[in-house]
Amino acid sequence: MSFVTAVAVRYLPFLAMTVAFHCLTAGGYVYKTEYFTVPVDHFSFTKNDTFRMKYLINDMYWARENGPIFFYAGNEGAIEIFCENTGYMWEIAEDFGAMLVFAEHRYYGVSMPYGSRSYDNRSTLGYLTSEQALADYVDLLTYLRHNGSHANVGGYDGANEDLNGRRTRPSPVIVFGGSYGGMLAAWFRIKYPAVVEGAIASSAPIWQFTGMTPCNAFYRVTSSAYTSTSAECGLTISASWKAIDNITKSNEGKSWLSRKWKLCTPLSDDSDVVNLKFWAQNVYVNLAMVNYPYPANFLAPLPGHPIKELCKPMKNHTEDTLTLLDSVFKGLNVYFNYTGKSECLDVSSTSLTLGEKGWNYQSCTEMVMPLCSNGINDIFENLTWDFQKNSDYCFNTFGVRPVADIVEKTYGGKNLIAASNIIFSNGLLDPWSSGGVLQTISKTVRAVVMAESAHHLDLRASNVLDPESVIKTRKFHKNWIKKWIAHYWKYPVRDPDNSTTSKFLF
Amino acid sequence: MSFVTAVAVRYLPFLAMTVAFHCLTAGGYVYKTEYFTVPVDHFSFTKNDTFRMKYLINDMYWARENGPIFFYAGNEGAIEIFCENTGYMWEIAEDFGAMLVFAEHRYYGVSMPYGSRSYDNRSTLGYLTSEQALADYVDLLTYLRHNGSHANVGGYDGANEDLNGRRTRPSPVIVFGGSYGGMLAAWFRIKYPAVVEGAIASSAPIWQFTGMTPCNAFYRVTSSAYTSTSAECGLTISASWKAIDNITKSNEGKSWLSRKWKLCTPLSDDSDVVNLKFWAQNVYVNLAMVNYPYPANFLAPLPGHPIKELCKPMKNHTEDTLTLLDSVFKGLNVYFNYTGKSECLDVSSTSLTLGEKGWNYQSCTEMVMPLCSNGINDIFENLTWDFQKNSDYCFNTFGVRPVADIVEKTYGGKNLIAASNIIFSNGLLDPWSSGGVLQTISKTVRAVVMAESAHHLDLRASNVLDPESVIKTRKFHKNWIKKWIAHYWKYPVRDPDNSTTSKFLF
Repeated sequence: MSFVTAVAVRYLPFLAMTVAFHCLTAGGYVYKTEYFTVPVDHFSFTKNDTFRMKYLINDMYWARENGPIFFYAGNEGAIEIFCENTGYMWEIAEDFGAMLVFAEHRYYGVSMPYGSRSYDNRSTLGYLTSEQALADYVDLLTYLRHNGSHANVGGYDGANEDLNGRRTRPSPVIVFGGSYGGMLAAWFRIKYPAVVEGAIASSAPIWQFTGMTPCNAFYRVTSSAYTSTSAECGLTISASWKAIDNITKSNEGKSWLSRKWKLCTPLSDDSDVVNLKFWAQNVYVNLAMVNYPYPANFLAPLPGHPIKELCKPMKNHTEDTLTLLDSVFKGLNVYFNYTGKSECLDVSSTSLTLGEKGWNYQSCTEMVMPLCSNGINDIFENLTWDFQKNSDYCFNTFGVRPVADIVEKTYGGKNLIAASNIIFSNGLLDPWSSGGVLQTISKTVRAVVMAESAHHLDLRASNVLDPESVIKTRKFHKNWIKKWIAHYWKYPVRDPDNSTTSKFLF
Repeated sequence: MSFVTAVAVRYLPFLAMTVAFHCLTAGGYVYKTEYFTVPVDHFSFTKNDTFRMKYLINDMYWARENGPIFFYAGNEGAIEIFCENTGYMWEIAEDFGAMLVFAEHRYYGVSMPYGSRSYDNRSTLGYLTSEQALADYVDLLTYLRHNGSHANVGGYDGANEDLNGRRTRPSPVIVFGGSYGGMLAAWFRIKYPAVVEGAIASSAPIWQFTGMTPCNAFYRVTSSAYTSTSAECGLTISASWKAIDNITKSNEGKSWLSRKWKLCTPLSDDSDVVNLKFWAQNVYVNLAMVNYPYPANFLAPLPGHPIKELCKPMKNHTEDTLTLLDSVFKGLNVYFNYTGKSECLDVSSTSLTLGEKGWNYQSCTEMVMPLCSNGINDIFENLTWDFQKNSDYCFNTFGVRPVADIVEKTYGGKNLIAASNIIFSNGLLDPWSSGGVLQTISKTVRAVVMAESAHHLDLRASNVLDPESVIKTRKFHKNWIKKWIAHYWKYPVRDPDNSTTSKFLF
């Protein structure tokens, strides 16, 4: 249950959150598992290597003659996680007569370009990029839009035939994604507008990059989720870092804290202490991400409004170190031991899962998201953003160095004025909203801000406890999806309504 | 002076034409030659290899405080050729206070990723793709827009500073290109709209690909340039292929034709005959491309309206083989020996220049343009399009196989409805107009058709003999460039005029 990527680096993995849902909403969705062969390298002709990417598909609701494809742009994890946890797509599929497709991101799950050697070194791992993943999705969708699935014998072969089996136009595609998947969804529409008609990009921090957002915004938003729940709780967390430092100066203190917090491995040196603090910091971030109004299952089961629960024992802020750390443990207990079944607290960061390692690598190449805290505007320790230090870590770990501006150059950064048909939805409770698009850019690139929502709650299945803002946002998505699909069928190639003259002959 | 890429394959190289202009309009343009280091592979992190791309730059007219960058997207040849032959950019630069930049396409000129080994094998040559080239241009422009030129000490360092040296916004960029360069210009705007504000894509056959345009369109347009000049001339060319076949059936006939046509190397076997016919076919195509109204220099000097000149001796169509072939030779003489200085006619195709080899390779990977003729709707021999044969040729020559739909998948094919700010200009005399965008797509993706223009005449320097359509088109370009730049300064990030609400807070 480690979700700390690297103490020295402190990239926050989206994955920590996504893994969390795996056991939660096994919503009983029915799908077929299929595979599609794609090139390892879409952008050179130096080699012929290919691999099989996994995707899940359901055509139960699909209207053969003109149904759209709803496509989930898989992010950093096994695709089943996203399939199970994007109930919104399942809920609206019938209304649209949509085929549902969930594609697994290369280098995650079982979609390994070089099998078990995929993570061996930079020459096998170097094709783990967002652009290569998007190109995989283009290949798969080109196939599905024109030919249907290769594995299905009578169902959806030959996308968009009319009732007499005549081929009409290829199916329109709407792309969905949350978190990194939301970034991919937005970028998909930006880079391949002829393949996808529109994108629902939920909690997509596409501006959490160098020069676009102050590095302290992320922890500021995280903090406000706590301080707005309880000012005292915020003060307690704020003071806890120094308290941990003080108590662990002595071996006795280390022993006391190890016992008190029931650590599986007692603290033995300073790096263990750093590790413990980083673990706690990540708990606060993760809880803020999944601060949902109903009980959910995040590594261990969580109550609804988990921050409120965590803050309950931490509401009486005290300067006394032992009392303070006792209350903090009680709060954290909500997170890691809600059921009371955990025998000890494991904060080790040594055994990264492959998915975590994958995101860690992406953070070391393209996904360079500067994060910092100062302990003044936030409840965390002072932590500066040190690009060089990160770069050195990346070089030592993966043999690569991050490129700070590659995302901006590739996808346009803050200049989205030429983009179209994207909804950016963000919840203000979500730390990642700090890097999201919170203001509408143009007529068809819209921002939706949900005051009471955490991380991409709008993409999850409906729940009676959903806040009004999330319910409204889902309707908003639906309306736009309708418009995009209608536009697709209305204007096959040219847009007469948007053109003053059809032809100039000089 | 060989411009036949491969007898078996018959890809028509744009290069044949571009090389032609080299000596023609050494317009006396002044520029500095610079170099910029870019990665060999922009799309993986498998290696650190870099190379220096060449570019030419002129800031004579540049308005430091808010001047745009006019950027030529270099195509398949040394960049000086395009710099010298895109007089239009030079002519309008002063009005716009524009910096002029001409970037050399990787693997052409001196911009060799692996120096003299660049063409050695598929692992060195495999990075010759349009997407990698565009990514080079993005890197260079990102640098120039934000930091100015590294080599200039007092001129344009720090693009767009105000008069007090304060940095304002980065310079807006307008991209220009003709032929394959025009395709790159359009694709540049499509893929990187945050980097370039608009594109002037002249004679850009972005639809000359599989499934977008009938394969016989190219030769049909070529033919009409001849038949509309003189029906008899068209009949003569049409009959010449069979006449060549007939006469060369015997060794005496081969000798006769070799002497009559003054071949440097006498015809000795059937492949020589095939070669000769292909050479002639290419002459007809090339002449159609540069069928300009004023004298120009195409390998050898050409008169104005060269097709008219070529057709003069071919106007009396006859069935008599010897007379017919004599008249054809006199016509072709206009093309290869206008000055009367050529001692013999060299039709060999064995010594490809590097530039020709580069385009040949690109035709074997991304740039798969199906061409065919049938001798009925055109004046050429019956030639079917055989993808497999081409693919085999490519595999034997370069160890790669073409991907027929890669351009469509990457750049959107005929679906340009989400694109913006592109002018597609085409001349109806130009064979490549067959694959061009001849109808306006939307408000800001406009097609301009010039009845009397050959291959990207509008991008060349003004000439008193320019047809009215070309003069009008240049004005049209200029107006749109003005609009695009004004829009850039008006809307830094969002587009309030194009947005109904600035923010949704649910």
